[in-house]
Amino acid sequence: MRIAPIALAGIAAIAVPAIAQRALPGAVKVDPAVAKARDAALKDDVAYDIVEGLTTEVGQRLAGTEAEARARAWAVVKLKALGFKNVHIETYTMPVWVRGEEKAEIVGPYPQKLTLAALGRSGATPPAGITAPVVYFPTFNDLLAAPDGSLTGKIAFISNQMKTTQDGSGYGEYGAARFVGPNIAAKKGAVAVIIRSIGTDHGRWPHTGGTNWTPGVTPIPAAALSVADAEQLERIFARTDKVSLHLTLTPRTLPDAESGTVVAKVPGTDPKAGTIVVGGHLDSWDLATGAIDDGAGVAITTAAAKRLLDGPRPRRTIRVVWFGAEEPGGFGGAAYAKAHAGETFAMAGESDFGADNIWRFNVNFPDSAKAIGDRIGVALAPLGITRGREVAGDGTDVGPLFKLGVSAVDLNQSGTRYFDWHHTAEDTLDKIDPEQLRQNVAAWTAVLWIVANAPEDWGKATPKD
Amino acid sequence: MRIAPIALAGIAAIAVPAIAQRALPGAVKVDPAVAKARDAALKDDVAYDIVEGLTTEVGQRLAGTEAEARARAWAVVKLKALGFKNVHIETYTMPVWVRGEEKAEIVGPYPQKLTLAALGRSGATPPAGITAPVVYFPTFNDLLAAPDGSLTGKIAFISNQMKTTQDGSGYGEYGAARFVGPNIAAKKGAVAVIIRSIGTDHGRWPHTGGTNWTPGVTPIPAAALSVADAEQLERIFARTDKVSLHLTLTPRTLPDAESGTVVAKVPGTDPKAGTIVVGGHLDSWDLATGAIDDGAGVAITTAAAKRLLDGPRPRRTIRVVWFGAEEPGGFGGAAYAKAHAGETFAMAGESDFGADNIWRFNVNFPDSAKAIGDRIGVALAPLGITRGREVAGDGTDVGPLFKLGVSAVDLNQSGTRYFDWHHTAEDTLDKIDPEQLRQNVAAWTAVLWIVANAPEDWGKATPKD
Repeated sequence: MRIAPIALAGIAAIAVPAIAQRALPGAVKVDPAVAKARDAALKDDVAYDIVEGLTTEVGQRLAGTEAEARARAWAVVKLKALGFKNVHIETYTMPVWVRGEEKAEIVGPYPQKLTLAALGRSGATPPAGITAPVVYFPTFNDLLAAPDGSLTGKIAFISNQMKTTQDGSGYGEYGAARFVGPNIAAKKGAVAVIIRSIGTDHGRWPHTGGTNWTPGVTPIPAAALSVADAEQLERIFARTDKVSLHLTLTPRTLPDAESGTVVAKVPGTDPKAGTIVVGGHLDSWDLATGAIDDGAGVAITTAAAKRLLDGPRPRRTIRVVWFGAEEPGGFGGAAYAKAHAGETFAMAGESDFGADNIWRFNVNFPDSAKAIGDRIGVALAPLGITRGREVAGDGTDVGPLFKLGVSAVDLNQSGTRYFDWHHTAEDTLDKIDPEQLRQNVAAWTAVLWIVANAPEDWGKATPKD
Repeated sequence: MRIAPIALAGIAAIAVPAIAQRALPGAVKVDPAVAKARDAALKDDVAYDIVEGLTTEVGQRLAGTEAEARARAWAVVKLKALGFKNVHIETYTMPVWVRGEEKAEIVGPYPQKLTLAALGRSGATPPAGITAPVVYFPTFNDLLAAPDGSLTGKIAFISNQMKTTQDGSGYGEYGAARFVGPNIAAKKGAVAVIIRSIGTDHGRWPHTGGTNWTPGVTPIPAAALSVADAEQLERIFARTDKVSLHLTLTPRTLPDAESGTVVAKVPGTDPKAGTIVVGGHLDSWDLATGAIDDGAGVAITTAAAKRLLDGPRPRRTIRVVWFGAEEPGGFGGAAYAKAHAGETFAMAGESDFGADNIWRFNVNFPDSAKAIGDRIGVALAPLGITRGREVAGDGTDVGPLFKLGVSAVDLNQSGTRYFDWHHTAEDTLDKIDPEQLRQNVAAWTAVLWIVANAPEDWGKATPKD
């Protein structure tokens, strides 16, 4: 009984944080057609049907393999069945990297197996493996500070800890250990690299993902320990710095192979108004069925576009694009932008951060189309989505279009669970919450409806930095 | 402001459930020495030190292997360092089963890999594996109902779903699919069995564990799919009953080997008053470091006994027993009871259900020592532990002593998380909550203190059914 009056009295004293003081859109009205389409999408079953079907009937879809080809065939059948027009595959070739055997065992002082997964583009050990002393770097910065040549004949262990953020911003910073750590260690003489997984869980599944080599650097074996195994190794390093490891990693790079992107159309009435591109990526890593990365993304954006396909014909044509080969380096997105560079695009956007609720959006339109952002804001507010202060333009697959000056809408999903499972064997259908998936479909439906029918015409946007 | 009065008014109307109406111990006083020892144990660091050390410095400890032998050597050093008396190993021989390669892949209709782990004592496929059609049994009962011979040449898939219970009682019923399902399927002609893991999670790690073969039945390959993989297979069976699987399992049974149980003593003042046996098991499955199963159990009971070792000498001698080879079939417990059958034991108890809070206790003393249960009840109540209505006598390792008429105290840990990780690769140190571990030590300290110093003398108890 004391709590309520105190809490009520407290409200008057709460300062409005600076972020809430930015200009609000004021008296912008929501188009009733948009509101109706958005709310109908909260009962959507198409997205779940797509991600359930793709993950069940195809499973993992490693880029450049026959599994990704089966996924493309599945996508064509599904998109045609949904009624999309001009469903087709646009192909390109790409280097293919496949996982081999992967084993690690502490030789001394405390013999035991560790669980790890090779990073994409990792080099290989001989089939019998290598044995070498391990050098422990608690953070990525400690690796940077190691003198040149100091790692000769040694295995570098980089154990920087990623923490959970809603916007996923930890990935860029902590991910450096994976993106460039092996390359740096190789240049300092290391014979192999093991990193603490770039993940926010404490479990036993390692998080794979690509690593990058600069020209002239020969790829060395590089793998991610599960977070639990990295913590175990840290406990051992707390007792001694004399740790040796036997490591076997036998991934292979195959000859360049064909991959492809699946494209489908919602025809618009005004070919000169520019095309909207929306989608996600069809390929997955090989350790799981890729439900959150990125079966959900193709499912969400396709289900939203399907609602425009089944409604009054929009002004602008929408292309639903299921990009190929995103994981190994964005080959599908790069090929798409190259092939379509001469066309006029009104907007592009992608969904590639799981299936949890969208909590924030950002846009990047030129001033002549500035009002579109305000219309999106009032349409998304009932879904619990606030407007961010950033310039939109995220995404590996549509990033190359943004660089060409295509306008952008980012719908940011909540990432508090995403990096528990990202690139692990746990990326499976059970991680998808159907209710949150529907909120995503509703948000994308509203965005597509608003942008596809916007009366404005606009030119190029200034790409974000 | 409305909520509080309503809630207060409601209290008068709440019926006391039947379970709360059993006789309470009334005005039994807690011995101040017991209360002091119990409360001091809430700051215990010994248990965490043991489980951290054992899991870090030894790792997995599969029964009958060199890893279990290293664990025994580690235990001897640790128990001597803690000041226990007469630290020694009691050996026996046992059959040894070790895991081999394990792979499963759906051949059709939707080719994809599944994650599984062989069950203990599983038979083996040829090295190249077998391919066979899969027959789906949603429950164990469906398997029982299958006609003899109906599984000839087929792989049986038993997918009964275990649900969470605080007392772990689902394990006995749902676990039948693992304990005896493969044996039943073999008798009906199956060439192999895959079961949905006996676990309450939805993750990708399979739960291993022993399976049993009756005389005359040749073991067939038997493995547990992760729950997520079983759910995936169920989704495929929802589309078609024509599923074929390629299965490779190459476990081996090695020649009988030596295993052993580590024993340490807290000397008592009255050798005729009978000995107390308390402990857990030292061995673990091979997939993880066995933190909750059962590093925690040996740690908790040893830390509690250490508090009596460091206090006034108790009336009764306490033996701390780290049983060997529990997982493959209770070899350590059976050997211990056989070797010590002629001795007088005042009580036995074990901790083998993780490290979460103890929420309930049961006892089994003869009438002449009935008051001990009441004294335990008032001493444990401040720890949030209520008295159950069952006859104590649980435990694979001390079970053979109970059959000899030894009195029992069961301290039941909360099992709401236990079967998420039980027998999987996730059974690692991070699953131990140090605060809950200390509550366990405090409860065992109180129990040991009360029983070791009980003035009563008593004979045999009637074993539970």
